[in-house]
Amino acid sequence: MLRTGEQYVEGIRERRHAKIYVMGKRVTDVTTNLFLKPSVLAFKATFDAAFQEDTRDLARAFSPFINEEVNRFVHIHQGPQDLVAKVKLLRRLSHKTGTCFQRCVGWDALNTLYIVTGKMAERGDGVYRERFLKYLEHVQRRDLALAGAMTDVKGVRTLRPSEQPNPDAYVRVVEERDDGIVVSGAKANITGVAAVDEVVVLPTRAMTEQDAAYAVSFAVPLDTPGVVVVVGRQINDARRMEGGDIDGVPYMAHHEGLIIFNNVFVPWDRVFMYKDWRWTGPLVEIFASFHRQGYGGCKSGLGDVIIGATYELAKTIGVDNKPNVADKLAEMVFLNESMYSAGLAASWEGSKLLKEGGWWVNPMYANVTKHLVARFPYEISKLAHDIAGGIVGTAPSEFDLKNEEIKNLLEKYLQGVPEIPAEERLRLVRLLENVSVSVGFLIESVHGAGSPAAQKIMFNRLYDYEKAGEIAKALSRIKVTVKWPKAPEPRRPSESEKL
Amino acid sequence: MLRTGEQYVEGIRERRHAKIYVMGKRVTDVTTNLFLKPSVLAFKATFDAAFQEDTRDLARAFSPFINEEVNRFVHIHQGPQDLVAKVKLLRRLSHKTGTCFQRCVGWDALNTLYIVTGKMAERGDGVYRERFLKYLEHVQRRDLALAGAMTDVKGVRTLRPSEQPNPDAYVRVVEERDDGIVVSGAKANITGVAAVDEVVVLPTRAMTEQDAAYAVSFAVPLDTPGVVVVVGRQINDARRMEGGDIDGVPYMAHHEGLIIFNNVFVPWDRVFMYKDWRWTGPLVEIFASFHRQGYGGCKSGLGDVIIGATYELAKTIGVDNKPNVADKLAEMVFLNESMYSAGLAASWEGSKLLKEGGWWVNPMYANVTKHLVARFPYEISKLAHDIAGGIVGTAPSEFDLKNEEIKNLLEKYLQGVPEIPAEERLRLVRLLENVSVSVGFLIESVHGAGSPAAQKIMFNRLYDYEKAGEIAKALSRIKVTVKWPKAPEPRRPSESEKL
Amino acid sequence: MLRTGEQYVEGIRERRHAKIYVMGKRVTDVTTNLFLKPSVLAFKATFDAAFQEDTRDLARAFSPFINEEVNRFVHIHQGPQDLVAKVKLLRRLSHKTGTCFQRCVGWDALNTLYIVTGKMAERGDGVYRERFLKYLEHVQRRDLALAGAMTDVKGVRTLRPSEQPNPDAYVRVVEERDDGIVVSGAKANITGVAAVDEVVVLPTRAMTEQDAAYAVSFAVPLDTPGVVVVVGRQINDARRMEGGDIDGVPYMAHHEGLIIFNNVFVPWDRVFMYKDWRWTGPLVEIFASFHRQGYGGCKSGLGDVIIGATYELAKTIGVDNKPNVADKLAEMVFLNESMYSAGLAASWEGSKLLKEGGWWVNPMYANVTKHLVARFPYEISKLAHDIAGGIVGTAPSEFDLKNEEIKNLLEKYLQGVPEIPAEERLRLVRLLENVSVSVGFLIESVHGAGSPAAQKIMFNRLYDYEKAGEIAKALSRIKVTVKWPKAPEPRRPSESEKL
Amino acid sequence: MLRTGEQYVEGIRERRHAKIYVMGKRVTDVTTNLFLKPSVLAFKATFDAAFQEDTRDLARAFSPFINEEVNRFVHIHQGPQDLVAKVKLLRRLSHKTGTCFQRCVGWDALNTLYIVTGKMAERGDGVYRERFLKYLEHVQRRDLALAGAMTDVKGVRTLRPSEQPNPDAYVRVVEERDDGIVVSGAKANITGVAAVDEVVVLPTRAMTEQDAAYAVSFAVPLDTPGVVVVVGRQINDARRMEGGDIDGVPYMAHHEGLIIFNNVFVPWDRVFMYKDWRWTGPLVEIFASFHRQGYGGCKSGLGDVIIGATYELAKTIGVDNKPNVADKLAEMVFLNESMYSAGLAASWEGSKLLKEGGWWVNPMYANVTKHLVARFPYEISKLAHDIAGGIVGTAPSEFDLKNEEIKNLLEKYLQGVPEIPAEERLRLVRLLENVSVSVGFLIESVHGAGSPAAQKIMFNRLYDYEKAGEIAKALSRIKVTVKWPKAPEPRRPSESEKL
Repeated sequence: MLRTGEQYVEGIRERRHAKIYVMGKRVTDVTTNLFLKPSVLAFKATFDAAFQEDTRDLARAFSPFINEEVNRFVHIHQGPQDLVAKVKLLRRLSHKTGTCFQRCVGWDALNTLYIVTGKMAERGDGVYRERFLKYLEHVQRRDLALAGAMTDVKGVRTLRPSEQPNPDAYVRVVEERDDGIVVSGAKANITGVAAVDEVVVLPTRAMTEQDAAYAVSFAVPLDTPGVVVVVGRQINDARRMEGGDIDGVPYMAHHEGLIIFNNVFVPWDRVFMYKDWRWTGPLVEIFASFHRQGYGGCKSGLGDVIIGATYELAKTIGVDNKPNVADKLAEMVFLNESMYSAGLAASWEGSKLLKEGGWWVNPMYANVTKHLVARFPYEISKLAHDIAGGIVGTAPSEFDLKNEEIKNLLEKYLQGVPEIPAEERLRLVRLLENVSVSVGFLIESVHGAGSPAAQKIMFNRLYDYEKAGEIAKALSRIKVTVKWPKAPEPRRPSESEKL
Repeated sequence: MLRTGEQYVEGIRERRHAKIYVMGKRVTDVTTNLFLKPSVLAFKATFDAAFQEDTRDLARAFSPFINEEVNRFVHIHQGPQDLVAKVKLLRRLSHKTGTCFQRCVGWDALNTLYIVTGKMAERGDGVYRERFLKYLEHVQRRDLALAGAMTDVKGVRTLRPSEQPNPDAYVRVVEERDDGIVVSGAKANITGVAAVDEVVVLPTRAMTEQDAAYAVSFAVPLDTPGVVVVVGRQINDARRMEGGDIDGVPYMAHHEGLIIFNNVFVPWDRVFMYKDWRWTGPLVEIFASFHRQGYGGCKSGLGDVIIGATYELAKTIGVDNKPNVADKLAEMVFLNESMYSAGLAASWEGSKLLKEGGWWVNPMYANVTKHLVARFPYEISKLAHDIAGGIVGTAPSEFDLKNEEIKNLLEKYLQGVPEIPAEERLRLVRLLENVSVSVGFLIESVHGAGSPAAQKIMFNRLYDYEKAGEIAKALSRIKVTVKWPKAPEPRRPSESEKL
Repeated sequence: MLRTGEQYVEGIRERRHAKIYVMGKRVTDVTTNLFLKPSVLAFKATFDAAFQEDTRDLARAFSPFINEEVNRFVHIHQGPQDLVAKVKLLRRLSHKTGTCFQRCVGWDALNTLYIVTGKMAERGDGVYRERFLKYLEHVQRRDLALAGAMTDVKGVRTLRPSEQPNPDAYVRVVEERDDGIVVSGAKANITGVAAVDEVVVLPTRAMTEQDAAYAVSFAVPLDTPGVVVVVGRQINDARRMEGGDIDGVPYMAHHEGLIIFNNVFVPWDRVFMYKDWRWTGPLVEIFASFHRQGYGGCKSGLGDVIIGATYELAKTIGVDNKPNVADKLAEMVFLNESMYSAGLAASWEGSKLLKEGGWWVNPMYANVTKHLVARFPYEISKLAHDIAGGIVGTAPSEFDLKNEEIKNLLEKYLQGVPEIPAEERLRLVRLLENVSVSVGFLIESVHGAGSPAAQKIMFNRLYDYEKAGEIAKALSRIKVTVKWPKAPEPRRPSESEKL
Repeated sequence: MLRTGEQYVEGIRERRHAKIYVMGKRVTDVTTNLFLKPSVLAFKATFDAAFQEDTRDLARAFSPFINEEVNRFVHIHQGPQDLVAKVKLLRRLSHKTGTCFQRCVGWDALNTLYIVTGKMAERGDGVYRERFLKYLEHVQRRDLALAGAMTDVKGVRTLRPSEQPNPDAYVRVVEERDDGIVVSGAKANITGVAAVDEVVVLPTRAMTEQDAAYAVSFAVPLDTPGVVVVVGRQINDARRMEGGDIDGVPYMAHHEGLIIFNNVFVPWDRVFMYKDWRWTGPLVEIFASFHRQGYGGCKSGLGDVIIGATYELAKTIGVDNKPNVADKLAEMVFLNESMYSAGLAASWEGSKLLKEGGWWVNPMYANVTKHLVARFPYEISKLAHDIAGGIVGTAPSEFDLKNEEIKNLLEKYLQGVPEIPAEERLRLVRLLENVSVSVGFLIESVHGAGSPAAQKIMFNRLYDYEKAGEIAKALSRIKVTVKWPKAPEPRRPSESEKL
C-alpha cells in the first residue's frame, strides 16, 4: 500500500501517547507544533513524491515480498538499478524540501537487517529472518514512517560498552522474559525521530563477547511505554516560532533527537538480533555503507539548492556573468557533482550478498562518497557566501520590510537590478542562509553515517595495501620472478568475510 | 579621557532620538533591548579592557594630539609597536567577548583619515587636516564609540555610482550649502552601528571624475535628523529573546546594520573629503589594509575560543589525548596561528606615510592576512565539529535540562566522563555552535574588509611581476648582460603613489 | 586479429623511413634507442595484456565490424559495460607499466570519429562514415598502434586559427587535389607518437566559418613523406641513458612529442572531416569527455603504484603501522579512489548518441573525473614524499651501491629494518621518485585531455543553473504557483544538441 | 674576514684528500666535477653576495666576537633585526641562484650551539661555551663554509638509538681518549656536504639517559680521516652531464649527501656536547625553529622564480592578462607571500634566551612558517604547470633546436607571440621545469627542518590548550568566578624551560 502525505500526517497525529519533548515542553501533536511542523512536512514529502508526476517513477518500486508496488523508502533493493534509483531519488527530494527528509535511516536499517538476517539464515539460524520478513511485510503493507536508531550516547568514548561507568551508555537487554526482552539505554542524534510511526534499533559498533547484552536489534512503535524522545535544537530553529513566512523558512526543516529506552518491553517477534555479537561488526559495516552512499544524493541535492540560490542572488546584483563569479559557480558545481558521482559509482558497482538477492553498495565508493561529503559542503557554503555577499549575514528582518515606517526605504536600498524586487532578494538570502549554515548541510555532513575517522578506518580496511606493494615491488624489479599481481580491487569488509 | 564601560553604556542609553529598528520595531533604548544588549556588552568590553589588569597596558596609549592617555581604539598609531599592539589587543578582546566587539572600523577610519587628510595637506590642501584634527580631539577627549561606514548598497554591481538607475545607490552629496552639505544614500553591513555615539562615513571605492558627488567623507552623531538604522539579523539571533542563559549565549554578540541617510545635513567642520575623487582610491586602499591587518588578531582570537571549546568537549568524552584528535587540534592551531602570524608581519613591516608619522601597515601582508582569514575559519569550524561530535547539531534545549520530568534522564545520558556534569557539556556545545557557525566567524571572515576578489586584485597590484620575470630571465640566461635585479619587495599601492 | 607485443615491436622496428628526432639526433630504430625503448615497452604492454591471464578478458572485445575478437584498444564501445571495462583496464595497465602506456588517445579518436561520422550520416552526409568504417576495419584487422593528434601548437593563444600571424599555427589544408588534400602545421604534446604505426589527426577546438580550412581530420602512417616527429624531454629522462638497472627505472616510460606536417599529402579515403566546421565543436566535446573519463583509470592506477611503493617504504623503516602513517595512507587511498569513482560513474551513466550505438560517457562525470585528476595527484605525491622521507630526494646512485670501496658502508647505513636489504629500499625509492614526480602523474594530470579551465567551462555549460535557480525560488516561495521543477540532471553539451 | 666567492672556490678545490663519491666514483676536485659544480656555484653565491651592490648590506654584519664585519652566514644574531635580515637575505639569494644555496644549516648550527653552550654556562658548566667561542672565532676569521649535520640514518624508526639492531644507526662516541673522542655512524640528507670546509654535527633528537653516548656534538674538517661523503641523486641531475646550456640549467643547483663517520677522531676542543643528554631536547628545538624560520625566505624566493618564469611564459603565448591567468597568478602570490609573512613574524617576535644575547626566533611562528612551506609549494608548482601549459612536460631538447635539419621547423612551431623567439620560450620552460619539480622546492619543502609531523607535535606543545579551555569555559559561564585568563601567547618549548 502507498500512503499519501496526508495519510502519513494523520497517522502520526493520532499517536498522542508518545512522550515527546521539545524546548522543555511535552508535545502531544507533532503535526501542529511550530518547532516540529517543518520536519513533518519534509517527512511528508517522501510520501507525496510517490504521487507527483516528476518523481512518481523514482519513488515507487515493486516489492516481491508483498507482490505490490511500495514506496521506495520501504523497498528492499533488487539490483544495482535500485541502488542508483535511491541516489537519484534523494537528490530530487532535496530539491523539494531543501532539507533532510529523514526517512533514509529507517530504509537503510531495513535493507541492512534483510541482509544480516538473511546471512544468519544461510549459516543455519533462520529465526531472525523469519521475524524480520514478517516485520518487513508489516512495514510495507502500512507504508510506515521509520526512524533508524543506531548511535548510542557512548559515555566515555574510549571504553567498550561493558566497561562503561554508566552501564546504560549503550542500549542493552536488562531482562530476558518468555515473551520478549526488556531494554534500557538511549540513542542519540536520531533523525526525524519525533515524526515516525516506529523506530528500528541497531547496535552501533562491533561488539565483543563481553558486550553480548549490547548486541541487540529490535523495532518498537514510538508510543511504546518507557520510550521518551527529546528533540534537539538546530541552528536558527527559534525563528520557526516567530510566525513570519520568510526568515524562518517555515516550509520544511528536519530534526534530530535523543530517544531514551527506560526499561522498554519488546516482544520476541520484534527482536532481530540478540546476543549474536559476532554479527554486530558486519551489520555496522553494511548499514554504514548504505547510508554513506545515500549522502551522494541528498547532499548534492542540497548543493543544487545552494547553487541555485547563489546564482539567483548573483542575478539580483547583475554579476551572474562576471568571470570570477562564473569561475566560483563552476567550482561549486564541480564539488557538488563529485559527491554525486561517487554515490553513483557506489551504486552501480553494488553486489549481491545473499543467494536470493541482498544487494549492497560498493563499500569503497560509498566511503569515498561520504568522505567527500564530510569535506566539500563547507567549501560550497564558503563559495556561496563569497558570491552572495555580506548581505547573507546582515539582511534585515522580514518584519522590517513589513513595517510601514521604513518599508519604502528598505525596498529602495535592498534592491539591486531594477527588475527584481527587494522582497525576492530577501527571500533568497534567507533560503541561502538557512540551508548553507544548517545542521543538515554542515554538521550532519561531517558526522552523519559516521565521522571522517570512521571512513579513514574503512579505507585502510578496504584497500589492499599488500597487493599495491606487490605491484610496486614488481615494477622496481625487486622480485623479477613475481607474476603480475591482480589489481587492488576494493574488497568486501573483512568482518563480513569471516562470517 | 578614558571612559569606563558603564560610562559608555550610559552614554548611548541617553541617545533616545536615534531612529533604530530591530526585527520590525523601533528601539529607543538599545542597552536593554534583548536583541541588541549582547552587542552593547561586546562594545562595552573595549572600554572595560582599559581598566582590567590583563589588558590595561595594551588597551591604553598616549596620544600626542591631546597629550594624555586614550583608549587605544581612538589612538593614531605612532609606530610599528602600535600596529602590533592593535593585533594583540584584538586577539585578547575576542577571548573576552567570543564575538566581534565592533569598534575597529571606526578606529581604522580615524587612522585612514589622519593619513589621507595629512597627505592632502602635504600636497597643499590643509583644510581637511585641520577639520579632522579637531574632530580627532573631540573623539579622543570624549572616548567616543564610533562606527565606520564604508560599504554602499551598490545597486547594480557592474555600474559605477553615477551610472546607477538609483542615484542613491552610493552615498552622495545632494545639496551644497553655506554651512555644510546634505547627503543621501545608505551604507550596508555597518558593524555595531546601533551601539555607537557617532558614525564616520568613507567612500567605498575609487571614484572617477563623473562620480565626484560620491567622493565624500564625513561624521555625524547617530541621532542626527534623517539618519535611520535598520539592524540586520544573524544566525541564531532569535535565541537571544528566549530568556534562557545557555542556548542563546546571551552574554555577548555583535550586530551589523543598514544606515540610511535620508537627506542628512552635515556641517562643514565634519566634512573630511568632498569632490576630491582622486583621493578616494588611496583612501580605500589605506583603510582596507588597516582593516585586513586587524582580522589577524580578532579572528585568531575567535579561533582560540573555538579551539578551547573543542578541547574541553574532547575532554568531556575522554578523547582529548587520542592521536587523531591531537592531530586535528594541531591542525586547528596551525590554521589559527597562520592568520595571526600574517597579521603580525603586516604590523611589524608597517611604514610611515606622512612626514610627521601616519603609520600604515604593510599592504601585502595585510592582504595575505585577510585572504587567509577568508579561507581558514571554515576549515577550523569543520574540524571543531568533527572533534566535538554530532551533538553540536542535536543537543537538547536548556529548557529540557530544567524540566523536572526528564532532567534526570538527560543528565544521565548527556554525560560523558563522570567528572563533568551534563550541563557543563551543554554549555560548551552551545558556545561552540554559536561561535563556529556565527556570522562573525564565517560570513564576516569572507566579506569583512573586502571580499576575497578584492584581495586578489591587490595581490596583482602589489606584486612586482616584471621584477620576478627579470629574475627568471636572468636565471635562464636569456639576457646574460642583465644585472641582478632587486628582490620583488612589496610595493606601495600604485594609486597612492600617483598622488 | 590480435597482435602480440612482439609483433607490435617488430612492426615499428621496420618503419625506418619515419623521420624521428630524439635529443637532437635522428633515430631509425625506436625499439633499441635507449631514450625511446621504455616507451616502446609500455606501448607493448597494451598488446601483451590481451594474452596475459589476469587481463585477457578485459583487454579483448568482440568487434561487430570485423566479426572477431580485437584488442580493446581498437574497439568501438558497445554499451556501458565497455565504457566501464575501459576504466578498469587502464587501471590495471598502469600497474603493469608504472607509466602512461600511450594507446588511449588513438582509441578515443576512433570512438569519437565513429560517433561524429555516424552523426553526419544521420544528417545526410554518409561519405565520411563510409571512409571511417573502412579505416576502422583496416585498424582492427591489423591491430594497429595509433596516436591521436589533437593539440595544435596554437601560436598566439588569444587569436583564432585564421587570425594567427603564423597561418600554420593550427594544422590546415593548404591544397585540395583530385586524389586528396595537402596539409601543413604541427600538433604538440602527442603521446607516444614515435612508437605508433599511424597517427589520427583531429581538430583541437570549435571552429568558425573563417577557420574552415582548419576543420580537418585524417589519418596517415608515421613514415608518410613530410611527417617529422621531434620527441620531447621528460623529467629524469637522461637517466635512461646511464645503463644502470635501478636509477633510470629503464623498464617502462612514456614520451610525448611534436609532430610536424610539412606539406603532407593525404588521400581522400583517409580524410574524415574537411571544411565541416560546424562539427568541430561536437567532435572536441565528445573526444574530450572520452579522454577525461579514461584518466579515472590510468591515473588511479599510477596512484596505486605510488601507494604501494610508499607502503613498502614505510615497512623498510618499520612505520607502516604508526597512526599518523596509517592516516596519511588512508588519505592517499581516498584521493585515489575518488578519481576512480568518478571515472566509473562517467562510464555507467554513459548514453547512446547514434541509433546503431555510438556509446558515449556521461560528460558531467567525465569532467568531474578529469578535474579531480587535475588536483589530487599533487596531493598524493606530497603525501608519498611525506611518508617515504627525505631519502626520496637524497638517495645515492645505484653506482655507489656497486662501488666496492663504499658498498659495505652504504649497505650498513641505507638499511632500515634488518629484514629488508638496502638495495630493495633504493629500488623502491627510485620507483617512487620516478613515478611521483613524473610528467605522467603531475603535468599530464593537469593538462592531458584539456587543462582545468576547459573543465570549468564544461561545468558551466553542462549544469542547468536555470533549473537550480527555479528550485531555489520555489523553496523560498518566490512564485508559489511554480510546479516542482525537474532535477538538474546533466545535459548533453549544447553544441552537440544543436546538430 | 670576508672571503670572495673565488676564494671560497679555491679553498675547497685544495681539499683533495676528502673522500667524496658521486655517481659511484671518487671525486678529488668538486669544483670541476660536472655533477657538483652547480652546487659549488650556488654556495659561492653566498660569498659573492657580500660584495654585490644589491645584497652587500644584507649579507654583512658586524660580529662582536671578532670585532669586525663578517659574512652574515657565520654571524650570531644580535637582535630581531638580524633575524629579519636573515629571512630577507635568503629570499634574495634564491633569486640569484634559483636553488638551495646550502649554507643555512651550518649557520643555524652555529647560532644553536651559541645558545645551548651559553645556557650550559649559565647553569655552571662553562667548558663547552669556551670551546665553542674559540671555534666561532676560527669560523668567522676564515669565513668558512660549513655544513650542519643533524639527521641520523635512524635504522628502525620506532626504536631509540640505544635500542637499534645497528648501534651505529645514530652517530655515537665509540671511544673516549685523553685527547678527544672517536665517533662512528652516519648523517643523512646533509645539504651541500661535498662543498664545505667543515661539518658541524648535532644530535638529531631528544635523548634519554640510555642514549648518552649518542648525545654528542662536534665539528671536523671534511678531509678528516675516516670521513666519507656519498652525494645523493636529485631529480633531473643527469642532465648536468650532457654539456648543454639550456636543458640542465647548469648554472646552479644544490646537492645533499650521506656523511659517514668511520671511527673518526675528534679532539676535545671541537667537542661541543658529550653525554649531556638532557640538553639534546632543547638543542633540537632551538635548531629546528631557526631552520624552519629560514624556509620562509628561501622557499618564497624560489616561489618568486617560479612566478616570474610562469608570468614570462604566459607572455610568450599572449595570455598574461587573461582573467583566469591573472587569478591563478594572484593565487600563487598569495601562497608565496603567506610563507614569507610567517617567516617575518617568527623573526620580529624573536626573543633573547641568554643574558648576553642569544636571540632566538619565535618557535610558534617558525613552525607555522615551515608547515606552510610543507604544503604550499606543491600548490604553487601545480598552478605554474597549469598556466605554463603542457609544454613543461613535452618540450624538445636544446639539441633539437641546434640541429640544422629541424631547427627552422622548431623555431616556427615553438614560437607563440612573434616578439619572443622560440629559444627564449624553451629556456623559460626548462627553468620552470627544473625549479618547480626540484628536490629543493618539493621534497625538501616537506622534509627539510623536520617533516610535517614534527611541526604538528610542536603545535601541540607550544599552544596552551588549557588557557584556551579556560577562555571557553569563562565565555560559556561554566565558572562565573573565573577571572579573565591571559591570552594563549606562544610559550617557550617545555624542554627548554625545564633546564
